[in-house]
Amino acid sequence: MTERSPLAPAAFPNMPEVAGVKLATAACGIRYKGRTDLMFAILEPSATVAGVLTRSRMASAPVTWCRAALRRGKARAIVVNSGNSNAFTGRVGQATVKKTVQAAARLLGCNESEVFVASTGVIGEPPPAEKIAHALPGMSHSASPKAWKDAAAAITTTDTFAKGATRSAQIAGVRVTINGIAKGSGMIAPDMATMLAFLFTDAAIPARVLQSLLSQANERTFNSITVDGDTSTSDTVLLVATGKGSQHKKVSRASDPALRDFRNRLEDLMRDLAQQVVRDGEGAQKFVTIGVTGAASEGSARKIGLAIGNSPLVKTAVAGEDANWGRIVMAVGKSGEPASRDKLKIRIGGVLVAKNGAVVPGYDEAPVAAHMKTRDIAIAVDVGVGKGKATVWTCDLTHGYIAINADYRS
Amino acid sequence: MTERSPLAPAAFPNMPEVAGVKLATAACGIRYKGRTDLMFAILEPSATVAGVLTRSRMASAPVTWCRAALRRGKARAIVVNSGNSNAFTGRVGQATVKKTVQAAARLLGCNESEVFVASTGVIGEPPPAEKIAHALPGMSHSASPKAWKDAAAAITTTDTFAKGATRSAQIAGVRVTINGIAKGSGMIAPDMATMLAFLFTDAAIPARVLQSLLSQANERTFNSITVDGDTSTSDTVLLVATGKGSQHKKVSRASDPALRDFRNRLEDLMRDLAQQVVRDGEGAQKFVTIGVTGAASEGSARKIGLAIGNSPLVKTAVAGEDANWGRIVMAVGKSGEPASRDKLKIRIGGVLVAKNGAVVPGYDEAPVAAHMKTRDIAIAVDVGVGKGKATVWTCDLTHGYIAINADYRS
Repeated sequence: MTERSPLAPAAFPNMPEVAGVKLATAACGIRYKGRTDLMFAILEPSATVAGVLTRSRMASAPVTWCRAALRRGKARAIVVNSGNSNAFTGRVGQATVKKTVQAAARLLGCNESEVFVASTGVIGEPPPAEKIAHALPGMSHSASPKAWKDAAAAITTTDTFAKGATRSAQIAGVRVTINGIAKGSGMIAPDMATMLAFLFTDAAIPARVLQSLLSQANERTFNSITVDGDTSTSDTVLLVATGKGSQHKKVSRASDPALRDFRNRLEDLMRDLAQQVVRDGEGAQKFVTIGVTGAASEGSARKIGLAIGNSPLVKTAVAGEDANWGRIVMAVGKSGEPASRDKLKIRIGGVLVAKNGAVVPGYDEAPVAAHMKTRDIAIAVDVGVGKGKATVWTCDLTHGYIAINADYRS
Repeated sequence: MTERSPLAPAAFPNMPEVAGVKLATAACGIRYKGRTDLMFAILEPSATVAGVLTRSRMASAPVTWCRAALRRGKARAIVVNSGNSNAFTGRVGQATVKKTVQAAARLLGCNESEVFVASTGVIGEPPPAEKIAHALPGMSHSASPKAWKDAAAAITTTDTFAKGATRSAQIAGVRVTINGIAKGSGMIAPDMATMLAFLFTDAAIPARVLQSLLSQANERTFNSITVDGDTSTSDTVLLVATGKGSQHKKVSRASDPALRDFRNRLEDLMRDLAQQVVRDGEGAQKFVTIGVTGAASEGSARKIGLAIGNSPLVKTAVAGEDANWGRIVMAVGKSGEPASRDKLKIRIGGVLVAKNGAVVPGYDEAPVAAHMKTRDIAIAVDVGVGKGKATVWTCDLTHGYIAINADYRS
């Protein structure tokens, strides 16, 4: 890993165990030397699973496998490697997935459709199927319910810190736990999610309900972040519910009021992980929160927020600590979404700098300039046409991004 | 101007006169010191006009004016200033347009709707209406049919060279001339055009026909370039036909076979100017031609080309002289357009590096690596689903872009 991002949290959180989940890691030498690059999550037979996957037309072999396996909604294992994305690898890639899944299924005595896989790293190089399959038996012996930080570290690539989050929630008065780990720092755009995130709860939730909860929360969290607007071929978020925690009231639909707290805590945890991904954006020096209000709908507000968050001109202005609201106007305009030029309002760091289609005469530049020098930048835009609102998170675009990406593969 | 782009043409072309067009420039001190910043094109009363304008929801006051004036299809003057875009300037901006148009119309004894205006520069600052209006009378005296290079220079902002092109065409055996000037180097994206381009011909073509010719050629030229994916609030392309050249057969529809050569030459000239804009892309060190074939349609091919051309990861790979075809696969995938992962072919510098959804085993990397070190990079992608094709032009994303845009306004 390169130097830790200046926007990183102080430390990896203390994560409790999640009944029914064990984790193991190994150093297989897939691409990196002297670090772990394989993560094996072993789940009790009761576990249900939901997932959201990249919409890329060039999806990786593991994504194709997961999409099919999710139809069954049951999981016994998740195998994740870093260093090789197994994307655009043709038949060799499919064979690698098959070999990995077979090895794990044999080890655990389960169906192949209960084994989920994800891969991240360089695109288009033949993945080392043997190394992965050979490592799994040893890992099944060393698996531990405590290895959350190790698991989070094993799945990183260009990340500068391991990402984890934990929440507890109540389902009809019974306490359950939700843990999550994620990775990603480049090729991050909201056409589904961050590159990879794995979420685990000991609650007992049917797969169909789990899928609904995950898809809803995903829109407002992983689908609301952007680093560089580039969508990965491997984006995967999986949510597993083991049903091995304290017994709670049975839930059979996502709208059950008993799930309200769980739904909120899940979204909160996913927002935390999504923000950590942005805080590790390649070359990021500033974390930017973009609030959009007054839009035609929530979806329209999100599109406007992402147009701002993906604009190279806005992102370089933030890097240069320049409160260049003209570029924000430009980005709202290019989004193509309904917006009133003559009612548009822009706030930077809470200060109203533009309204009614023009700059606020004599607005106080001093607090705005001071705000632009901080690490956490707040941009708020009201587009004056409706009641839709959304929040999007991004980072600035710096020389660091160019340096990292102009010699990543060479 | 900063240092001339390494991708610039050797020299500004020798441009002949266009009968019925005179040009003047002046230094009004709008924003820049020691250089011209106002261009005044005076046209004979016979001139027809067509235009394409930004689709931005935050269009500038001059764009709003031009959109309305184009309905009449007649032009006597074009007034263009650099240094202030008159965008997001509220009522002051509209008043400035009105004052400029009134001053020009009074001077030339024409209707206000025959005066076209364009502005480029910083967004959101009150434009200096008096300076512009006061400069016009003196300029009408100094206007010359030869001042093409001066006119091209006066409309630049962050451009590092003035952009012009000329072609001659035959209409039913009679020779006509087409001249064009353009400006732009940042905030360039294909949601209409480059920032500003003004095209003039001495042919006699009705406004409706002219509009059809311009709109068609625009798709394959200015709408097929991208520097940073950011669409300007001011994008404007105007095409004027004075009808003051040698008399030719009357044309009354765009599909008239007599216009075939004119149509081709016009598209050729517009492609030349569009490529010059890309060659002046902020921080550009390499010019990239992206050919897409095998797409579902021409429009789909263009979208795929633009997804590749707008990808920060592809553009930084080009900057790093890295033949990273994995990122090209990613960009095709994120375009959302129909494409076959398992039939995808990629050529770099003419060498087939990927086919049938995987790298070509043992392809010769030496010529590809050598190609990546040149100034002109050729990427060709066949997406394997149909017969649609398109070409898109872009540049690399370098430290220079960050440097220019992180302290443009401050």
